[in-house]
Amino acid sequence: MEKKIVLLPGDGIGKEIMESAKKVLAAIESEYHHRFILQECAIGGDALDRYGVPLPDDTLHACNEADAVLLGSVGGPKWDNQPPEFRPEKGLLGIRKGLGLFANLRPVKTFPTLLHASPLKEEIVKDSDMMIVRELTGGLYFGEPSERRNNGEEVVDTLAYSRHEIERIVEKGFESAQIRNKHLTSVDKANVLESSRVWREIVNEKAADYPDVEVEHLLVDAAAMKLITNPSGFDVVVTENLFGDILSDEASVLTGSLGMLPSASVRTDGLGMYEPVHGSAPDIAGKGIANPIGMILSTALMLEYSLGMQEEAKAIEAAVMDCLEQGYHTSDLNVKNGKQMNTEEITEAIIENITTKC
Amino acid sequence: MEKKIVLLPGDGIGKEIMESAKKVLAAIESEYHHRFILQECAIGGDALDRYGVPLPDDTLHACNEADAVLLGSVGGPKWDNQPPEFRPEKGLLGIRKGLGLFANLRPVKTFPTLLHASPLKEEIVKDSDMMIVRELTGGLYFGEPSERRNNGEEVVDTLAYSRHEIERIVEKGFESAQIRNKHLTSVDKANVLESSRVWREIVNEKAADYPDVEVEHLLVDAAAMKLITNPSGFDVVVTENLFGDILSDEASVLTGSLGMLPSASVRTDGLGMYEPVHGSAPDIAGKGIANPIGMILSTALMLEYSLGMQEEAKAIEAAVMDCLEQGYHTSDLNVKNGKQMNTEEITEAIIENITTKC
Ligand SMILES: CC(C)[C@H](C(=O)O)[C@@H](O)C(=O)O
Ligand SMILES: CC(C)[C@H](C(=O)O)[C@@H](O)C(=O)O
Repeated sequence: MEKKIVLLPGDGIGKEIMESAKKVLAAIESEYHHRFILQECAIGGDALDRYGVPLPDDTLHACNEADAVLLGSVGGPKWDNQPPEFRPEKGLLGIRKGLGLFANLRPVKTFPTLLHASPLKEEIVKDSDMMIVRELTGGLYFGEPSERRNNGEEVVDTLAYSRHEIERIVEKGFESAQIRNKHLTSVDKANVLESSRVWREIVNEKAADYPDVEVEHLLVDAAAMKLITNPSGFDVVVTENLFGDILSDEASVLTGSLGMLPSASVRTDGLGMYEPVHGSAPDIAGKGIANPIGMILSTALMLEYSLGMQEEAKAIEAAVMDCLEQGYHTSDLNVKNGKQMNTEEITEAIIENITTKC
Repeated sequence: MEKKIVLLPGDGIGKEIMESAKKVLAAIESEYHHRFILQECAIGGDALDRYGVPLPDDTLHACNEADAVLLGSVGGPKWDNQPPEFRPEKGLLGIRKGLGLFANLRPVKTFPTLLHASPLKEEIVKDSDMMIVRELTGGLYFGEPSERRNNGEEVVDTLAYSRHEIERIVEKGFESAQIRNKHLTSVDKANVLESSRVWREIVNEKAADYPDVEVEHLLVDAAAMKLITNPSGFDVVVTENLFGDILSDEASVLTGSLGMLPSASVRTDGLGMYEPVHGSAPDIAGKGIANPIGMILSTALMLEYSLGMQEEAKAIEAAVMDCLEQGYHTSDLNVKNGKQMNTEEITEAIIENITTKC
């Protein structure tokens, strides 16, 4: 197959880990006889530095023409004091909205070899395996008005949703549950917010279309507790944008392997943007020691969700698991009797595992 | 001293644990020669059942005349399918707003004898001792409009704050930091919300008035992570209503002692409402086995913050600590070689510790 992929390295360690993704893609190309046409574009602080805007039109255009997009990470202290319109994050919000990537999928799974790195007790966290489905282009992030009033004496932001926006993300939640363990937790704040009451109604309506999926409603505050006290009690969680932001970040540290977690932001036609969950890590940027596994597993998710390459995705995931079992790890992890590697070395080790398997 | 206290037992285990609070107050009365004039009023589901509204006018009036208010807990499955206006929670939101209790103070501290009950590893959680200061009468909870539009095709909620509302809670945060460890973490989502940008500006302005307090800004998603990875890295956290709802509940399960945590909701003149953090626990209501310690420590907070009785508050806290060291506990906790007690027994044990000390 021939596929067009846009690469957005972005800022900080984004550039370094994108190199790992490229090498993995090259290995998949030669093992499976595909052709990936790669185009690198600017976003975030990198785009601000080079073009004066966090999301150049060319970037958005290229992504729209592509089969899939890989993103490293955006942001860094260099741009922290810019006005809101000229901050790297605007590029991220802009590309989500511009491409209509309304569903953010965040799998969180424990890696047996890394359980010791979890802040939670092993018996609490051990069987955790959940998927957080976060709405990504609505709610407080994009609602209008969002402004100061009365000479700055008052300020409002608006949490706005249309039924359509809620329906499509809720469907995504149910569909994810159907191909996983058939349990859906819908998170809202229906005892306070009108938007949450509409959300809950829609979940209950849609439930009829997915009789094989068991549905549970949980208030967002209770969900924040349960993630810690009983993380293995979740299968798929579906929630609105800001709740999803908070809960998916909370969930991402449970397993002690933030550097390994991938994410996908997708729309209905298959186009998707894939990125690791961790940030741009300015403190270690440029040192060549960043953990590329979140990026590499994001590449696998891309092959699976956007490019129809299930087998290839599985090969990458298996190669990563093997590498962890071989005791290889980067400096963000402390593995007893393991072998610490830099970004390039661990990438080579993973690729080695891919090619010997195929 | 003579003080008027309104008691709002509410629903579920609220009634049972309020009995414990009364006994503790009686002990303090006789040991310290005070007089507490107690008046019991209805709220929540109890008020719905008896008066058809979740917050009768008489209740609000009595609270307004009192020196302090003690609340058990409200809510339960019985009223879950009521329309929003007739749900127990409306009573809670109504009394907060009606009394102008804009600051919710939630101390979270590890109990050395209960560390084993934490879902976190002991080395992560062990020195945690934080105070979450949550804004309680603004933001998405009370902003207008909050409504469906276009025949239900759209829905909005409004996150609204005035400068004045932000200033007074931020001041409360700084003041709390001053009497604690002089570190304030202000939590917002300034990379997305205009209200958060105003919030951050106000925190930076106010910082000049509290030069002895070190200020840190943290995004809400990062805060949700740090609570788990480094809970002892917090001293005072100040944040808006909904973020505070989520983060304070998240924080409440870190130490493994949710049943022991008190909270205070106060305004500037000293009037305050005090309640345990845990809910109405319908599953164990009526069995006489609920853990009354959160309620008893809330009573201590009331003495300290609203009634000017520091010494009395300390005596209660010391009595609770002694009781835990004696190995006494309720069934929500699993203490090795401890002695399990019901609500009444552990209350008596605590009172015994109060009277032998004084
Ligand atoms: C950078 C920020 C705007 C973004 C968000 O809040 O969505 C980030 O936290 C994320 O979750 O991808
Ligand atoms: C019951 C509910 C409305 C309330 C809130 O969200 O404030 C509760 O969760 C709390 O934190 O006291």
